[in-house]
Amino acid sequence: MKKKNNSIKLRVISLGGLNEIGKNMTVLECQNDIIIVDCGLGFPDDDMLGIDLVIPDISYLEQNAEKIRGIFLTHGHEDHIGALPYVLRNIDVPVYGTRLTLGIVRNKLDEHGISAKGLNTVAAGDTIKAGCFNVEFIHVNHSIADACCLAIDTPVGMVVHSGDFKLDLTPVDGGMMDLTRLGEIGKQGVTLLMCESTNVEEKGYTPSERLVGRSFDSIFERHPDKRIVVATFSSNVHRVQQIINTSARYNRKVAITGRSMLNIVKSAVELGYMSFPKDVLIDVNELSRYPKNQTTIITTGSQGEPMSALHRMAFGGHDKIFLGREDLVVISAHAIPGNEKLVGNIINELLRNGVSVFHDSEVEVHVSGHARQEEIKLMHALIKPKYFMPIHGEFKHLVRHRELAVSMGEKEDSIFVMEIGQMLEIDNNGAKINGVVPAGKVLVDGYGVGDIGNIVLRDRKLLSQDGIIIVVATVDINGFYLVSGPDVVSRGFVYVRESEELMDEARQICASAINSCLDNGICDWTQLKNRVRDDLSKYLYAMTKRKPVVLPIIMNV
Amino acid sequence: MKKKNNSIKLRVISLGGLNEIGKNMTVLECQNDIIIVDCGLGFPDDDMLGIDLVIPDISYLEQNAEKIRGIFLTHGHEDHIGALPYVLRNIDVPVYGTRLTLGIVRNKLDEHGISAKGLNTVAAGDTIKAGCFNVEFIHVNHSIADACCLAIDTPVGMVVHSGDFKLDLTPVDGGMMDLTRLGEIGKQGVTLLMCESTNVEEKGYTPSERLVGRSFDSIFERHPDKRIVVATFSSNVHRVQQIINTSARYNRKVAITGRSMLNIVKSAVELGYMSFPKDVLIDVNELSRYPKNQTTIITTGSQGEPMSALHRMAFGGHDKIFLGREDLVVISAHAIPGNEKLVGNIINELLRNGVSVFHDSEVEVHVSGHARQEEIKLMHALIKPKYFMPIHGEFKHLVRHRELAVSMGEKEDSIFVMEIGQMLEIDNNGAKINGVVPAGKVLVDGYGVGDIGNIVLRDRKLLSQDGIIIVVATVDINGFYLVSGPDVVSRGFVYVRESEELMDEARQICASAINSCLDNGICDWTQLKNRVRDDLSKYLYAMTKRKPVVLPIIMNV
Repeated sequence: MKKKNNSIKLRVISLGGLNEIGKNMTVLECQNDIIIVDCGLGFPDDDMLGIDLVIPDISYLEQNAEKIRGIFLTHGHEDHIGALPYVLRNIDVPVYGTRLTLGIVRNKLDEHGISAKGLNTVAAGDTIKAGCFNVEFIHVNHSIADACCLAIDTPVGMVVHSGDFKLDLTPVDGGMMDLTRLGEIGKQGVTLLMCESTNVEEKGYTPSERLVGRSFDSIFERHPDKRIVVATFSSNVHRVQQIINTSARYNRKVAITGRSMLNIVKSAVELGYMSFPKDVLIDVNELSRYPKNQTTIITTGSQGEPMSALHRMAFGGHDKIFLGREDLVVISAHAIPGNEKLVGNIINELLRNGVSVFHDSEVEVHVSGHARQEEIKLMHALIKPKYFMPIHGEFKHLVRHRELAVSMGEKEDSIFVMEIGQMLEIDNNGAKINGVVPAGKVLVDGYGVGDIGNIVLRDRKLLSQDGIIIVVATVDINGFYLVSGPDVVSRGFVYVRESEELMDEARQICASAINSCLDNGICDWTQLKNRVRDDLSKYLYAMTKRKPVVLPIIMNV
Repeated sequence: MKKKNNSIKLRVISLGGLNEIGKNMTVLECQNDIIIVDCGLGFPDDDMLGIDLVIPDISYLEQNAEKIRGIFLTHGHEDHIGALPYVLRNIDVPVYGTRLTLGIVRNKLDEHGISAKGLNTVAAGDTIKAGCFNVEFIHVNHSIADACCLAIDTPVGMVVHSGDFKLDLTPVDGGMMDLTRLGEIGKQGVTLLMCESTNVEEKGYTPSERLVGRSFDSIFERHPDKRIVVATFSSNVHRVQQIINTSARYNRKVAITGRSMLNIVKSAVELGYMSFPKDVLIDVNELSRYPKNQTTIITTGSQGEPMSALHRMAFGGHDKIFLGREDLVVISAHAIPGNEKLVGNIINELLRNGVSVFHDSEVEVHVSGHARQEEIKLMHALIKPKYFMPIHGEFKHLVRHRELAVSMGEKEDSIFVMEIGQMLEIDNNGAKINGVVPAGKVLVDGYGVGDIGNIVLRDRKLLSQDGIIIVVATVDINGFYLVSGPDVVSRGFVYVRESEELMDEARQICASAINSCLDNGICDWTQLKNRVRDDLSKYLYAMTKRKPVVLPIIMNV
């Protein structure tokens, strides 16, 4: 069934990571083969009340499961690997990633009780054959160690997927992003570049991770009298390494707190991504054995998460660590949009307790892991793609990235700003958007995957605004009379003890509504309930200008 | 009862605006007189579900109502005047403010059906005697016209309250902030400076409002082919004036949309704060009579508010204006923390529909109305206060402001970083924090002022996370048997049609729980309900890992 080269089509579909932040997932399909790049989760929007996380709709992959040759992971961040436990439950395919990436994936699969037998470790420079694709892993810098971009050789030419990247000329470890290899590939000709757009609105270059190390040095030097507490992302292995290095240099012991921080440091040490003198690390329980100013604490909670170790320390809810005038807290992170208030609350509370605080608004204690405009331009300049698809960003980022590519000389009609599910079809004659596959957000709430839809979310929203009033009555439908009730119960509407009169009146209104129906021979459930709902809603709105959910429950005997 | 001067005490209390953004309100008390500076509202935090707005707890003022000589307003923003309708309902005192400020207040009181007879118009330069206080209004620049700071002569010396201010050397109208008068007052000696801290983390100076005018000029010049839609704060009269000026210069007609924008422009024109050629303004209904690129639309919605005119235009819900490829939208505002996502959603949707968008991340289409570090230093340098109290900011801003004052040579023990309700007492011997008065947040929800407390908010939070399950049963407590039910009804938990099995099982569990109680002679309401709640909660958590509110309602016949 081998076709002539000219008619071979490559299909590229994003199932996530387009027009949104997170849940990155790209599908490449050619002949009878499919490969998947990344398998990430997203975090719920503010209006997805009670939802834990969001994963891509993979029904297209389930329909084509027999074609899938593998999942290729660019790095170990949640928005690139977090949906794996859910996807591998339905699709049994090999997974390829670097050592640290798979170390993190393994922990995650363990937690979900899913077998890790399909995991295959690769190193930057390796090429994996997967059906008609040959996937090469190329080293890039990012805010997690062992990150790669992918050069995917396909029957219609080379495809480069940037993953998440930055250019770090003085990386803490692991060497500079492999510009040489990218240049070679660019020279040979690249059909399609997919490049991340996270920081495309930022001018210039993202600074080196080493800058943060220098800030730590200066803080440690100027504050020999304080215990130093640093909050950062647990996955930023190089950041954690630098904090430990600086601590060791200033003869401080280091205690680590927060479950995810402990997990990742353990993995990173085991896998050789982190190293330090044996006696530097101590247990949180041993902190009291040392003078405070000879210790450092590394903690989770840099996003202000209410259950995190830092939050508990700040608000006095940590069972072992109390922060006060002898402490200095460094928040080595930038608040993700939506988290500013949470982080601000912690800073305010720390200052109120006399703790000194350094955060990234005035001191350089954090750098981004994503390429800014000049680094993105460098990627375009090296790769010189025939076609370009901006990925990883909201629509405004993708549009800005298109402008930037045009400014580099790329042609507007060779650039594809797409929506998730849209299929880009490339053959030797050209490229075009040609059709869509099912795509969207699958909401995870507890054990439920995809069972929460718009109706439930709308109800949660209504309940959160003005609460609920439940009217219960038992009616004898033969005798047309009220047997018991109506009782009126509320949650989240008013505090009943303070509003007894209102609730008494509400009960009267419901009783009148029901009796008036029954007196007129109406005992149709729907009519009865509607009458109660209408009368009570009107009364409550007139009295309170609020619109609680009114739920009549009428039983019969 | 006149005391010797030495024993006269001035008390300064903030009832809002400290350690929070908004609801600004300062109380000055001396001898038998109280004056109040500003009377603002705040917006609810994310965890205040369903709450419309927040006002200060004024029980201290209610207890001392006979002492209050007046409320002095620095300017007409909501966070300085918004609580007036609620406060004037309980305390009948004269209100002093400049013309535009009171114009806005008058509209607000009208809406609430409250008499505006106590409003007294003043102009910058005027001094009002109020008991033992003499209050002078001094012109400052801000993002609303007719803003003032206050120099309050008291029996223990001069107090300066900055209000909200910036220094604009090239203001659009109304002249530069009156540095000369502030310098004179400083020269005579100031006992206490209260200075705002909003932008104290920002280096340098806030640019002039005129800069935004220049950006408009350049955008209008470069885009003669587009209809231009500008979203901004309705109260920024000078901004709106500049948009109209630029439009007139480029021969465009201007239509205004959004209720608050229409209201404020009407007031500002009537009061003489805005002027333009008569035929520039057209009604939204007249837009279709002109070529699109000869019109400008000024709209509300710069914060992404879901009911605003801009939001409706972007998402196709506006009945008269549809935006597309012939439109260019300028978002002339900075997203307030918490609103970034809402604004981002609008930008993404506009770009998706082919609309060109300018916002403040890349173009200077907005400047702040608040002083940055150098302007704040200028205030300190001119006033040279004996004591200083940073106001208007979260704790981190107040602490930063203290550092800044110390860097200006002020002494740390003369600076008072306070909490709301704390009383600063000043006499000729010194100043100290001496006691507290009741203070806090009063939540407004619909007509209810202060009737929503922690229990109701906690219930709304729980309801919003996993919804509610209501179990209804009627029991004959004489015969110890179930008369009807149990029925199980849910809202916001699962969509019942998709989870019939789960709900059937839930019903069985409730029936067993009730029957087992009744069989054992237990018909105590509390025991019955607890048993149902416990059994059902356990089952649902085991099946779904969710924790809905479980509400058993048991009736008897």
